[in-house]
Amino acid sequence: MDADEMAKTFVKQYYSAYDDDRSNLGVFYREASMLTLEGQKIQGPVNIVAKLTSLPFQKCKHGITTIHCQSSGPAGGTLVFVDGLLEVDGQEYAPMFIQMFHLMPVPNASTGSYYVLNDIFKMDYA
Amino acid sequence: MDADEMAKTFVKQYYSAYDDDRSNLGVFYREASMLTLEGQKIQGPVNIVAKLTSLPFQKCKHGITTIHCQSSGPAGGTLVFVDGLLEVDGQEYAPMFIQMFHLMPVPNASTGSYYVLNDIFKMDYA
Repeated sequence: MDADEMAKTFVKQYYSAYDDDRSNLGVFYREASMLTLEGQKIQGPVNIVAKLTSLPFQKCKHGITTIHCQSSGPAGGTLVFVDGLLEVDGQEYAPMFIQMFHLMPVPNASTGSYYVLNDIFKMDYA
Repeated sequence: MDADEMAKTFVKQYYSAYDDDRSNLGVFYREASMLTLEGQKIQGPVNIVAKLTSLPFQKCKHGITTIHCQSSGPAGGTLVFVDGLLEVDGQEYAPMFIQMFHLMPVPNASTGSYYVLNDIFKMDYA
């Protein structure tokens, strides 16, 4: 699977899980993982899921506009840059969001297993 | 210098150079460096500078809104996520841009020398 295909597969899996039940997102992260959410830094799957589930909406739907990806160097990672529209609780106005992930291979796992080491998320209220 | 300070210093230096004379931006990149510009991938300092200098404006001014950064794992890199407004040729409407850099330490250099391994740039015409 090349980087573009891997990025697309990851994006599909991640946002499906998010929109379905964001309390299940912990599987994408490990202890070293860091989320920057609107400037706040949150580390590790437990804290990241606690933050994501505390966001003030019940339902959401991420509509992806573009995905760009690049290999990120000697450690075998991949950078994934996403933008799209985030609809919450059925509201008509869906603001734009921008999110970048740094995916790293899971140590000692079979090829193709990745986790999110870095996650930077920002809403873009135009 | 911590990662936040380093990111701020880099952002200042990079956009000062860009707004002053973008033909000088090659010093920030190395042969492995990749720029994704509106979906097109361009590799290496010569090609990156050729692309940047071919953009259809004479003067520009990047106004930075936010900078977020995170350490990027075992290879010693730093991710820098920037958004801001890009004014070109003195036009009144300055659209938003989003750019992310993956900075890596220069091998065998003194501490604090970094180059841009990954650069993903996107205009955000709201």
